Amino acid sequence: MSSIEMIEAAAERLSGHVRRTPILTSPFLDEIAGRRVLVKPECLQHTGSFKFRGAWSAISALDDHTRGRGVIAYSSGNHAQGVALAASRHGIGAVIVMPSDAPQLKIANTRALGAEVVLYDRQNESREAIGEAIAQERGLTLIRPYDEPQVIAGQGTTGLEIAEQAHALDVTKADVLVCCGGGGLTSGIALALESRAPSLRARPCEPEGFDDVRRSLETGQIQNNNASSGNICDAILTPQPGQITFPIIKRLCGPGFAITEEEALRAMALAFVRLKIVLEPGGAVSLAAALFRPDEIEGDAVIVVASGGNADPDIFGRALEFLT
Amino acid sequence: MSSIEMIEAAAERLSGHVRRTPILTSPFLDEIAGRRVLVKPECLQHTGSFKFRGAWSAISALDDHTRGRGVIAYSSGNHAQGVALAASRHGIGAVIVMPSDAPQLKIANTRALGAEVVLYDRQNESREAIGEAIAQERGLTLIRPYDEPQVIAGQGTTGLEIAEQAHALDVTKADVLVCCGGGGLTSGIALALESRAPSLRARPCEPEGFDDVRRSLETGQIQNNNASSGNICDAILTPQPGQITFPIIKRLCGPGFAITEEEALRAMALAFVRLKIVLEPGGAVSLAAALFRPDEIEGDAVIVVASGGNADPDIFGRALEFLT
Repeated sequence: MSSIEMIEAAAERLSGHVRRTPILTSPFLDEIAGRRVLVKPECLQHTGSFKFRGAWSAISALDDHTRGRGVIAYSSGNHAQGVALAASRHGIGAVIVMPSDAPQLKIANTRALGAEVVLYDRQNESREAIGEAIAQERGLTLIRPYDEPQVIAGQGTTGLEIAEQAHALDVTKADVLVCCGGGGLTSGIALALESRAPSLRARPCEPEGFDDVRRSLETGQIQNNNASSGNICDAILTPQPGQITFPIIKRLCGPGFAITEEEALRAMALAFVRLKIVLEPGGAVSLAAALFRPDEIEGDAVIVVASGGNADPDIFGRALEFLT
Repeated sequence: MSSIEMIEAAAERLSGHVRRTPILTSPFLDEIAGRRVLVKPECLQHTGSFKFRGAWSAISALDDHTRGRGVIAYSSGNHAQGVALAASRHGIGAVIVMPSDAPQLKIANTRALGAEVVLYDRQNESREAIGEAIAQERGLTLIRPYDEPQVIAGQGTTGLEIAEQAHALDVTKADVLVCCGGGGLTSGIALALESRAPSLRARPCEPEGFDDVRRSLETGQIQNNNASSGNICDAILTPQPGQITFPIIKRLCGPGFAITEEEALRAMALAFVRLKIVLEPGGAVSLAAALFRPDEIEGDAVIVVASGGNADPDIFGRALEFLT
């Protein structure tokens, strides 16, 4: 279902609306990693993560009539903000279904980006039931966070940029480390690289204990995580790989990495001091893999997709403690 | 002495070596400022500040023989790192004269960037005397931090990029707020805008109590600061405007801003949460002016040069406290 043609079409729709993020480097990071480290900071994307790409892609792919009725998403995090802003810039309504115990700042942000927030009680209500009722009543289109071909295509535009940027920097062969939750970004990038830069290979990076994609790659079968929360990398905690994303990842990606919370925090601290960017834990596991797992990587360069920067100030403060 | 032709020539020498920084935006910052806020994050430049531009420009402008003998600079901060990396990438030696009580991390960084660090006792020794003796003995060229035409030309390449980027974003008339110490960046940008985008006007931003350029503009005469230290904006504390930079600033710039420490910290916090970039206090005064002095600015857009991100983790932690 997902293909390079869809990614190329998404790139045309995204042009002028999505930020082309640069490649950042530091000789200090190269020294730690023992090779050149090229970081693509998607934290600098609109709304602070790559999610805006997929949201824009999915919304812009709808026909005018369908799009005009509005969209709906379930998320308390980066996907919510991406959908909210992409909808608002298309001049359409967005309903975001969020748990009532989500941080006030996230709720306020999602509203400020133009979305209507519908709160539900995480203990006693089903967000799917609530969302479906609203969607039916108003004729809204559900924008899934990853298992949706147009979302994968949008995230894949990151891979088109990486292929061009790596070529410009004379990097011909390298691993591309990608923070991985449900696998939308990883599968999209893998598809883009397959056709534009086949000697670049995507590899998923996950939190330890939530390494369902890594284990699924090892066994060849979709594996679940035992827990659904309890890790600072909240942006990339998903129960299992997607039904659409996993077959792509299985066909194209190299082995995964399972990163500890401390490694994620240390990578955030190094991104602060060496790259001057803000990463959230779930957006830093790829950099952590590049810096702290050098023996699991081959080649004289590694590409890192730092996928998001919506860090809580307290968690960021914990990361900074590693510098003193 | 400094001219648009020198800036254009510097841009050619810098091409492929210096990062073209993007323009970042956030609807949340637009809301606070009451107009569009376009941020040029020079914190993402090599070594974490715009200083690398001027250093590269000055070193690359030397004739081969002179350059081959090496360069020297006095600085404990951003200029030191810019000169160290630019020299190392030219394959030449750099001596950086630093006070022995400078932070260990800054000394270590400057060494790690390839420079020879010569320490002096700030109380009992003159860095000029020490530097001059070493320079004479080894035939090194002194790279001044701002009152040097080729350094101004290098910083001015930031202005060339702003002119192009503002045009692409349909911003035809706006103030360009620039963090200002000795005035190298401000004067370089002002010269570039004069010829490439004359309806964009540079305006210097300084810390309160160290607003020598603002007061010099008001009186038309070079004014000194009373103090030389005692402000968290250490990167832009200079005793007075430069002899070369001030006449340019006087001819081309709009009125200056004097920013409080708290305003600088609040701007750092907003850059963290809304732009996902790390700013140091002296690199955030321009953003502070855009956000907190809306009545002193005209037009429906404002451009902010966020000049550096080499923030101490403790100071950054203080900024984050404004978010909780």
